[in-house]
Amino acid sequence: MAILVVGSVAFDSIETPSGHAERCLGGAATYFSLAASYFTDVRVIAVVGEDFTAAEEDVLKRRGVDTRGIEHVAGKSFFWRGSYLKNLNEAQTHETHLNVFETFSPSVPAEYADSEFLFLANIDPMLQANVRKQMPRVRMVCGDTMNYWINDHRENLEKVLTGLDGLLINDGEAKLLAKDANLVRAAEKILASGPKSLIVKHGEYGATAFFGDKLFPGETNHVALPFRAPALPLSEVVDPTGAGDSFAGGFFGYLASHQEITPATFKRAMFYGGVMGSFAVERFGTERLQALTREEIDRRFALFRELSHLD
Amino acid sequence: MAILVVGSVAFDSIETPSGHAERCLGGAATYFSLAASYFTDVRVIAVVGEDFTAAEEDVLKRRGVDTRGIEHVAGKSFFWRGSYLKNLNEAQTHETHLNVFETFSPSVPAEYADSEFLFLANIDPMLQANVRKQMPRVRMVCGDTMNYWINDHRENLEKVLTGLDGLLINDGEAKLLAKDANLVRAAEKILASGPKSLIVKHGEYGATAFFGDKLFPGETNHVALPFRAPALPLSEVVDPTGAGDSFAGGFFGYLASHQEITPATFKRAMFYGGVMGSFAVERFGTERLQALTREEIDRRFALFRELSHLD
Repeated sequence: MAILVVGSVAFDSIETPSGHAERCLGGAATYFSLAASYFTDVRVIAVVGEDFTAAEEDVLKRRGVDTRGIEHVAGKSFFWRGSYLKNLNEAQTHETHLNVFETFSPSVPAEYADSEFLFLANIDPMLQANVRKQMPRVRMVCGDTMNYWINDHRENLEKVLTGLDGLLINDGEAKLLAKDANLVRAAEKILASGPKSLIVKHGEYGATAFFGDKLFPGETNHVALPFRAPALPLSEVVDPTGAGDSFAGGFFGYLASHQEITPATFKRAMFYGGVMGSFAVERFGTERLQALTREEIDRRFALFRELSHLD
Repeated sequence: MAILVVGSVAFDSIETPSGHAERCLGGAATYFSLAASYFTDVRVIAVVGEDFTAAEEDVLKRRGVDTRGIEHVAGKSFFWRGSYLKNLNEAQTHETHLNVFETFSPSVPAEYADSEFLFLANIDPMLQANVRKQMPRVRMVCGDTMNYWINDHRENLEKVLTGLDGLLINDGEAKLLAKDANLVRAAEKILASGPKSLIVKHGEYGATAFFGDKLFPGETNHVALPFRAPALPLSEVVDPTGAGDSFAGGFFGYLASHQEITPATFKRAMFYGGVMGSFAVERFGTERLQALTREEIDRRFALFRELSHLD
């Protein structure tokens, strides 16, 4: 089933201990779309400027991503410059230019209306709410956010959270959102505030899913225990940019490729999230995500299982 | 088969967000022994002062731990005062009094000579080497260390490392020891320097084992991939003191309870390490480890599996 994703399509200039890259194609919606494209049909809503040419659009099109919802306007695309020289787990931002994103008002094209899965990537919660409202009949909605929205736009964000089937954030964001330094208690508070599941990304340590009561209504067994998926220990992380968005794309893409969302499907989706995140960081920008095969992905999935399973 | 452990037996005064405890029975050898005692026979070598009474010794004896190797001398036992008020993952040390430990020269009693497993808990590498030399025929030796020995006693430590079947340390210690900020590369360097396996403890994120070539000589399948064991997400960590030593006790105790060390046994031992660590932090000091049952332990082992396994 098709996924509709709304989020940023951007240019990133990135420096890491492995080198640097100027104006890579980036943005949460780009990483998400490419990662999800190996599992299901993906449609993007975003806004770009005149610097986003046919060459960039082809990166998405070659993966079969439907780009008709990318709005082209006068001006420059969203631009971010950052580095990870001290710590690969935390980007230092040197420049952020919202550019055409400043006046973005997303609208869902008619061709996208039958999308059954919706992903609200990390953008202004007002925009997330706007798109959510235009898609009243989707089967499943997941989303992401970040410290800036949690700190300064909490009220708008909370309205979005109530309607989510899954919220994907990292440890620090979960603790900030719940105002609790213990992750389990933070998860309980967040689940009580709306989302039916919470997926906390731990970077090199994998991810943990916490389940609310209503995620698997057809299941006789409520999933009371959290679920932990591993990450692959890597001897070189070339560029961590987009790892979380790639996790989200692999996770949601795998879910959307199934008729029924069961606990087993959800847990496997967590593994596929880790798999796509592990590929993303092997090259600068989206390079690695542009030319994978499903066979490579499934081989790595098998590695993830071997890495973490008894017998 | 019996484990011989050498390490500290101490008194700890601890403050955490959950409260405080004065002069709990502590020390690496104490946590290790109690945790391992649920799996196999344990014998301790340590030194204590006059403040260590029959009541303290009974805590170990009640768990069947052989305390004949605990040397009683004039003076006071090792004492540590610390807190975890800002960060449960990192102790702040307020006082350390080595006391009787300052002149400790461990000697292995004749009754301990047939121990087949040896654990060198975190003490001066000179003392670790001394005990190692007295036990030339043990089947398996594992050990622990910490930043202080890595920084200031590297040469002595390296001599101990060459003879280890397994080194158990945390992320920061592994990176410091290998002088490499990437964990996989750090692990490769450490394995190249001697230990046949490296178990890196990640606190609330579990632990990862890396395998050298010679750990399972009888195995046709060399284990090239690391192995990740989860930790249990807990809504309250009452006192993290001794979590790593309890992990080591569960891990090594489980291994020592088997005739043959196979990759499958090793992986299950990693899970049992996590299980014993998760119990240890539920109460101050060793309280929780004093009165468990093997049934409780195996129930939690099943939880760890459910928490991390697909299907």
